[in-house]
Formats: sequence, C-alpha cells, structure tokens
Amino acid sequence: MDKTLEDQNLKLNKIIAIIGGGLIGQAWSVVFLRAGFKVHIFDTDKNVLNNLKISVTAKLKELASFGLMQQDLVSKVIENLSVYDELEAAVNNSNYVQECGPENLEIKSALTKKIDKFTPDRVPIGSSTSGIPSSLYAAEVKGRNRCLVVHPINPPHLIPAVEIVPSKWTDSSISSKVAEIISAADQTPIMLDKEIEGFVVNRLQGALLSEAFRLLTDGVASYEAIDKAVSEGLGMRWSFMGPFETIHLNAPGGVAQYIKRYGSMYHKMFENQKVEDDWSVALDQGLDKQLCKTHPISNLEQSWKERDQNIMRSLVHKHGTSK
Amino acid sequence: MDKTLEDQNLKLNKIIAIIGGGLIGQAWSVVFLRAGFKVHIFDTDKNVLNNLKISVTAKLKELASFGLMQQDLVSKVIENLSVYDELEAAVNNSNYVQECGPENLEIKSALTKKIDKFTPDRVPIGSSTSGIPSSLYAAEVKGRNRCLVVHPINPPHLIPAVEIVPSKWTDSSISSKVAEIISAADQTPIMLDKEIEGFVVNRLQGALLSEAFRLLTDGVASYEAIDKAVSEGLGMRWSFMGPFETIHLNAPGGVAQYIKRYGSMYHKMFENQKVEDDWSVALDQGLDKQLCKTHPISNLEQSWKERDQNIMRSLVHKHGTSK
Repeated sequence: MDKTLEDQNLKLNKIIAIIGGGLIGQAWSVVFLRAGFKVHIFDTDKNVLNNLKISVTAKLKELASFGLMQQDLVSKVIENLSVYDELEAAVNNSNYVQECGPENLEIKSALTKKIDKFTPDRVPIGSSTSGIPSSLYAAEVKGRNRCLVVHPINPPHLIPAVEIVPSKWTDSSISSKVAEIISAADQTPIMLDKEIEGFVVNRLQGALLSEAFRLLTDGVASYEAIDKAVSEGLGMRWSFMGPFETIHLNAPGGVAQYIKRYGSMYHKMFENQKVEDDWSVALDQGLDKQLCKTHPISNLEQSWKERDQNIMRSLVHKHGTSK
Repeated sequence: MDKTLEDQNLKLNKIIAIIGGGLIGQAWSVVFLRAGFKVHIFDTDKNVLNNLKISVTAKLKELASFGLMQQDLVSKVIENLSVYDELEAAVNNSNYVQECGPENLEIKSALTKKIDKFTPDRVPIGSSTSGIPSSLYAAEVKGRNRCLVVHPINPPHLIPAVEIVPSKWTDSSISSKVAEIISAADQTPIMLDKEIEGFVVNRLQGALLSEAFRLLTDGVASYEAIDKAVSEGLGMRWSFMGPFETIHLNAPGGVAQYIKRYGSMYHKMFENQKVEDDWSVALDQGLDKQLCKTHPISNLEQSWKERDQNIMRSLVHKHGTSK
C-alpha cells in the first residue's frame, strides 16, 4: 500500500460534520471528501439534502477532469458522504465540526449552543463566518474554549488558504488541532494570533479595494486599467509569493533596504488619504454597468465556471496534478 | 508568410532607443527584441556596453527554454541590438525612446533635455521612473508635450503590465502612440488619465503593504501567515482577474450587490485606521532576519532566478507557449 492510500485510510476513520448544505457547506464537503475524510452533512431543508450528492459529485468530477484528484477516487469518496436532517446524528462521533450557518449573530449563537451540546468533548467547532468573531457568537456557549472561526476563501474547494481565528477563550490545543485537520485536508492554514475585524484576508483585500475605488472614483484610471494593473501585474507575483517575500526580492539588499529606499515614498502616497470612502459612488459612475458588459448578472454562473476553471489550471501549474 | 512573421517584419523597421544599460534597460531590450523591434541602447559605461549582448542573450534564451519565444529566433533578434556610447547616435532615427536613467530629478531633467534635443520630432520619450512624474522632470524640456512616464513592473521582461502616465502637457496622440508600441511589444498598457503619486500599481501595492505591515507589527499574524493569505489565497484569483472583476463574481447579484452587502463591513474595518505607519518597526521586530532565513541576501540572485522561473511558468499557463 503506498503512502497516499495509507494516509487516506487513516483519514477515512475521521468524521467531519458539516452544518449547512449551502454552497459553502458543499465546497467544504468536496475539500474533506477529496482528502479521504468521512463527511456527515446536516441541513433542515429536504431539497438541499436530496441534491447534495449530485452537486458534490459534479464538483469532484470537475476536479478530476483537471487532474486535481484521481478519476477513480470520485466514486469511492462520494460513498463517504452521509446526509442528515438531524443535527445530533450528524455531529455524533465526529472529529471536527464545520458550521456553515447564516451570517447572523443570534442564529449563529443559538446554532453553536446546539452543536456544542451534541458534539463529543474536545472536538473543535469551527465556523465559516467571514464577519462574526467567535468572541461574539460563542460568548455564551458552554464549550466556547473549543469554538473558533475557520474561514475559507471563495471558492472554498479551490482556494487553499483557510483562516483560523481563535477568540481569547479558545484553547491553543484546539487551534493547533484545527490547523492539523486543515493541513490534512490539503488546504493551507492561515493562523491568526488574535481576533481582528475582517481577519487577515479580507483586510488585505479591503485595503487594496479601498485604494482601487479611490483611484476609480477620482478619475485616475478606468476600472479595466486598474483591474489589469493587478491581473497583468501585481497578481502575477502574488500568486506564488506573498507581499513581504515580493518586496524582499525587489531590492538588492532585501526587505531592510527596500523599506529604507521606498518606505517614505509609500508613506507620502497615503499621508493625505481621505478616510471617508463610499464605494457606491463608483456605482453612480457606472461601474456596475461596465462590469455587466463582460459578466452579465444573468450569465454569472457561466462566469463563475470560467473563474473556477482558471483557478484549477493555476493549481495544476502551482502544485501539479494527482494523475 | 504567416501573420506573426509579417508583424515581426513590420516591427523590424521600427527602432527603439533605450537610454541606460542597467537591469531595467536590459529588460526593456529583451521586451522589444523579442517582439521584433530594432533596439539601439546607449550607456556611458564601456563595461556595461561590452556585457550587454551577453546578458540580453541569456535572458532571451531563458524565455525560449520556457517556450515563451521561438528558440530559433533568439540568434536572429539579437542581431537587432546595437550598442552606442553616444546618445545622439542612439536616438537618431528612433521611433520611440525609453529612458532608464537614475531616479534623480536633476539628472532626469538634464538627460531628458538632451534626449529631446536629438530625437526626431513627434517621437515619444518615455521614462521608466517609478516615482518622478513627468510634470516635474519634463517641466523645462522644450518638447515636454512628447514626454511621459512609461513605468514597467519588476521584472520588466516578464510582467506584462506597463503604466503609461501623461502629464498635463503630454499630447494625447503621444500617449496613444506609446500604448500602441507597448501593445506591439506584447506588453499590457495600463493607461492613467492623470498623474498621481506612485501611479496605480505602486499605490495598490502600497495600500496592501501598509495593511500587511500593520497586521504584522500589531501581532495579528506572522509574516508567513500574511504572505500565505496572499500567495495561497487572494493572489490566486488576482493572477487572472482584477479586484473589481473578483468582487463582481463574489455576489450572486454582481458588484452592486457586493457593495450593498459588504461595503459597510469594509468601511468599519478601516474607520479607526492609524494613519501613522512606520514600516521599519517590522524590522525591529525581526522581519528582515525571518525573510533572510528563506532568502539570504548572499543568495538573492538565486532567489530572483527562481521567482523569474515561477513567473515564466505562470505566463505559459496564462498565455500559452510560442512553440
């Protein structure tokens, strides 16, 4: 038995409970099934449950068609997906719970209490939330020391980065256990050492977006020019090197020299920055209409498909195929 | 004769004068030679001139080895490179001048005056400067209406984006002509509609870097975690879609819905932003030492080589080979 199969068999004994069968829950199912875990997925909506296997199978097949998983494993791993209309049954015997409920503080608090009640001791309970820290939604949960945010990036089954955000109550052993599970699922854990609004990924994206909106609404450049400055410029480096590594390689003396040479230039750029920025001004100026020329709302599903295919090709280029 | 060769023969009659034979001048030579232009390169340093053909040939061969230009064209196009130790001779008969002098206002002003004096009428004079707008260095140049910034991204022969930044004096026909030349050189023109400190690319990079430094020095995450949030997250989308296209595809109703849903979330993230940010604090905290573990200064040339090879593989993945 080769190492890969052995690893997979080890993982097969581990059960991941996914709470919520929407797009995010489906994507997490793909992630864990692909890596050889058993997945118990819960939803209250019978229609959602009935369609789950079909949509998850379609995503697995697409991965296989790009060489991102072995073709013959698709039918095997889909056998490891079980659907549940009772939460208790789904989390029972699980080794990790990934909650994918609605982005609403009260609903998430109540849901987490319920999950906590039925989940075996010491099993981590992660939430896919992009905006509600666990110090808020888990404050009154009995097992708040095992609750934390485990935030995927869209599309979750294709983008490796996953943010792990503990609250002040989260046991560090729980955070480490989640990082191990995320790594075992072939995703990349991004560990935060403390809670912050927006976490790291959306703060970095937000900082760049804020500047992009300012440049657009101030008439410095068209949205196409700004988009290309990233897609044909900055993004080509950032798809395999982070911002720090990039600047370390952009001065002959490394990052210290870079900061000495360019720090004040960047500082000067932003010293008179407007704090007030209302992105909807860009809509008044026609951004929505322009973007809809290339990607009409009625055809967004096709645009998503093309985006996902581009990411899959990037993954093959970065990490090779499984064939 | 197929279209490619016909195009190349057309370009062969066009002469690009490159002023300065340093790393940027060499990279521009590679760009224009690869696309079939004649290149006249000027430098005052005999050593630089003597080594030019060797280093440019090495870069062309590397492109060919990755399938980014035809192998048998390398020896042909290198014949189109001529070196000059007199500026007048280099710009004589040129169709476009790309100045790659030092980043110093006085030197650049004096150099541009000299170029303007000897360059045929109506021929655009672009500067590779990353920080000095043409309204400053060209203010007292007689032909300031044909001067503008034409700023490449490092490494210039591999990253397609090139910023074109006219001053208030630059004729719009000159800007358009430069955009045509940049496109003909198989690069991607990023047209700015007005001057702004740092242009577009460095402002976008600076906005993201400022946030990255804040997160690092505030102890939110390690530099490795922040770097991976980009290289295994945001950057994987941004390598083929700009920030606006990305958010347009991140809400079922497109960008208008995205702004409605998430605009206030982003706004809240940054409303209490510190304006003061001193990047050198990160150095005091050990960033330099950490980055030098992976990329020691003594070995940066090897790190650059690996970065360039990664970008070349990305280019093959994005645009295919020339084979």
